[in-house]
Amino acid sequence: MNLDLLRELTVENPSKIVLLVMDGLGGLPHPETGRTELETAHIPNLDRLAQESMCGFTVPVAPGISPGSGPGHLALFGYDPLVFQVGRGILEALGIDFDLHPGDVAARGNFCTIDAQGVIADRRAGRISSERCAELVAKLNGFRVEGVEIVVAPVREHRFLVVLRGEGMSDLIADTDPQREGLPPLPPRPLAPEGERTAHIVSLFLQEAARRLQDEGPANMILLRGFSRRPHWPTMGEVFKLKAAAIAYYPMYRGLGKLVGMEPLPSGPKLEDAIASLREHWHRFDFFFLHYKATDTAGEDGDFQRKVLALEEADRAIPMLVEMDPDVLIVTGDHSTPAIMAAHSWHPVPFLMRARWARGDGCEAFNETALQRGSLGTFPAVHVMALALAHAGRLRKFGA
Amino acid sequence: MNLDLLRELTVENPSKIVLLVMDGLGGLPHPETGRTELETAHIPNLDRLAQESMCGFTVPVAPGISPGSGPGHLALFGYDPLVFQVGRGILEALGIDFDLHPGDVAARGNFCTIDAQGVIADRRAGRISSERCAELVAKLNGFRVEGVEIVVAPVREHRFLVVLRGEGMSDLIADTDPQREGLPPLPPRPLAPEGERTAHIVSLFLQEAARRLQDEGPANMILLRGFSRRPHWPTMGEVFKLKAAAIAYYPMYRGLGKLVGMEPLPSGPKLEDAIASLREHWHRFDFFFLHYKATDTAGEDGDFQRKVLALEEADRAIPMLVEMDPDVLIVTGDHSTPAIMAAHSWHPVPFLMRARWARGDGCEAFNETALQRGSLGTFPAVHVMALALAHAGRLRKFGA
Repeated sequence: MNLDLLRELTVENPSKIVLLVMDGLGGLPHPETGRTELETAHIPNLDRLAQESMCGFTVPVAPGISPGSGPGHLALFGYDPLVFQVGRGILEALGIDFDLHPGDVAARGNFCTIDAQGVIADRRAGRISSERCAELVAKLNGFRVEGVEIVVAPVREHRFLVVLRGEGMSDLIADTDPQREGLPPLPPRPLAPEGERTAHIVSLFLQEAARRLQDEGPANMILLRGFSRRPHWPTMGEVFKLKAAAIAYYPMYRGLGKLVGMEPLPSGPKLEDAIASLREHWHRFDFFFLHYKATDTAGEDGDFQRKVLALEEADRAIPMLVEMDPDVLIVTGDHSTPAIMAAHSWHPVPFLMRARWARGDGCEAFNETALQRGSLGTFPAVHVMALALAHAGRLRKFGA
Repeated sequence: MNLDLLRELTVENPSKIVLLVMDGLGGLPHPETGRTELETAHIPNLDRLAQESMCGFTVPVAPGISPGSGPGHLALFGYDPLVFQVGRGILEALGIDFDLHPGDVAARGNFCTIDAQGVIADRRAGRISSERCAELVAKLNGFRVEGVEIVVAPVREHRFLVVLRGEGMSDLIADTDPQREGLPPLPPRPLAPEGERTAHIVSLFLQEAARRLQDEGPANMILLRGFSRRPHWPTMGEVFKLKAAAIAYYPMYRGLGKLVGMEPLPSGPKLEDAIASLREHWHRFDFFFLHYKATDTAGEDGDFQRKVLALEEADRAIPMLVEMDPDVLIVTGDHSTPAIMAAHSWHPVPFLMRARWARGDGCEAFNETALQRGSLGTFPAVHVMALALAHAGRLRKFGA
């Protein structure tokens, strides 16, 4: 889908579109029961919604590709994730409302544990608390070298943000995180000649960090990855003429929304928290992205039963959402996270869209088997926005 | 689908392909019965054809996009409508067999009613008769200024064609039709510097037209839109090695066929008229595009029952078509026009293809529910020609 085509065809109207993303929604059958998480969960409200909706499955990036959270969401927002790519550092910065200056280069940091041989014993330093993270970040802050300031900010648990602020900083720097334990941290290698000075600054910062953290127990070193700059993309306002809100508890998802011009709104971890925020701000926006994380967290932990419970908890909040009667209501995920895989996967993601001009397809339930009857079939997630806009009456006719 | 790939693979043979386009074919359920137009109509012949055919739904342009008649047909002819774009002025010119010269710029004209304040009171001047249109066109004709001749020709009812003929005319001119009543006509603004002289000529013509029409009652002014030049595209003969005919009663559809090298053949408003023409010219062509308009007209008028009757009338003619036993017989639409929306829509369009190598999918009937079992699923309309050519034995193997 071409953003320029949509930009040319979109019109404004008073309709409301709600996109509920249940993170890691899709699953695979439990070996003992032969039923997926959705097939196991008691989700009468989602089932009823499926009966009234056009249904199918979305392919987030391309067949066989397991997406990270960034591409999975950007596709649903209508931004082709193979074209619109964003680094992890920037996602973290946006997620904590960090005030990025022009020219800043951001990286995602982990506190880690290095053993006496200089090898990574724990990539997450025993998942230290967010309070401890903030104390350690305070120790790292205030480093300035060769005209470059290194700003550090806590994110959550062992995760923090590093921002390089100064003339000529480049994002062409390889990760220092080898993504495996038992190896030493990697040097900050330049990926091109213009990264050389930045790599030198980063290595000075890493030496200083090692010195400042040497007595700090499990969190005695840091790992950096995803060096990146903030991209400047057309906003959903510019392209779709939508006033859009991002309602998410976790920072990164608000950050993803902000990248495409959504206004972040507060939320809590439960779906009912997100819906409460939606109700409060209902009149100010045309488009609401609601993020529900618990499904993915359970899936990534390989906890089938907890993912079932997370689905059931969300299902209980669905009537609050239906009651708001948006013109277009979409429920889907940014990718699948089958609990039996304990990881993001490439499996197409259950999708439903309820709207006035969308006929019910006769799917009896909201799960991987029942939705195979859906009229939308298996389709690219990047088409979701065009379908949403069409069903909201927000697209003019193309051509004479 | 890439035209170059097809050009490379097509071969000639004595097969016949028939593409029946029922304009605005797809629909949505009537709120009282829950059944679409196709589900309501008694269409035993189309149902039988569906049982013997490969079935599915076509997406004319892209998901969510409601196509105009141009893009909807060009996709079915195998020409990607996002690549092959044509202006409204040219479509009107081709449709009335107007003899365009090289360099001509064409625009679609409407007679309209302007009130005493200079504001558009009726964009269609009360839909004056075709006879009256011809009289008024005669009054507008014969204007020549600064070496440019402005040729005017009647189309139908309030619609006419304006052709600018002279050195250096440009199509980079904005519409003067604001597409809304209650506003004054817009000035013919140049869209780029090379449009400046043309804009000047058009504004002189508009002044003259206002003067000549001032005493003509409801049709006291004109609106122009879709300034365009004739594109020069590869023909179906060149790309597909097909001798193709366009059998359509309404001018614009013959014009669309001519744009891709079809020979226009006469027809009447009924499907049986089109089929009679097909029989008469059967031996001269390999490919026949038959256009049936009544389904779309009823749909656009929001007349559910009349669309049902139009489907039933077409169904009665289907045996005449089946009797000709084309090697490939396709029935589909250029887009959906659900009567309950009274407009072109983005909904995928019912599709069937009967051919020797196309297995029946087990669809019991020709409608939006039954075709969901179709093996073709929901697929881009631009792939239809490749499927037709393949099933006609007209495509060589690709690669060794």
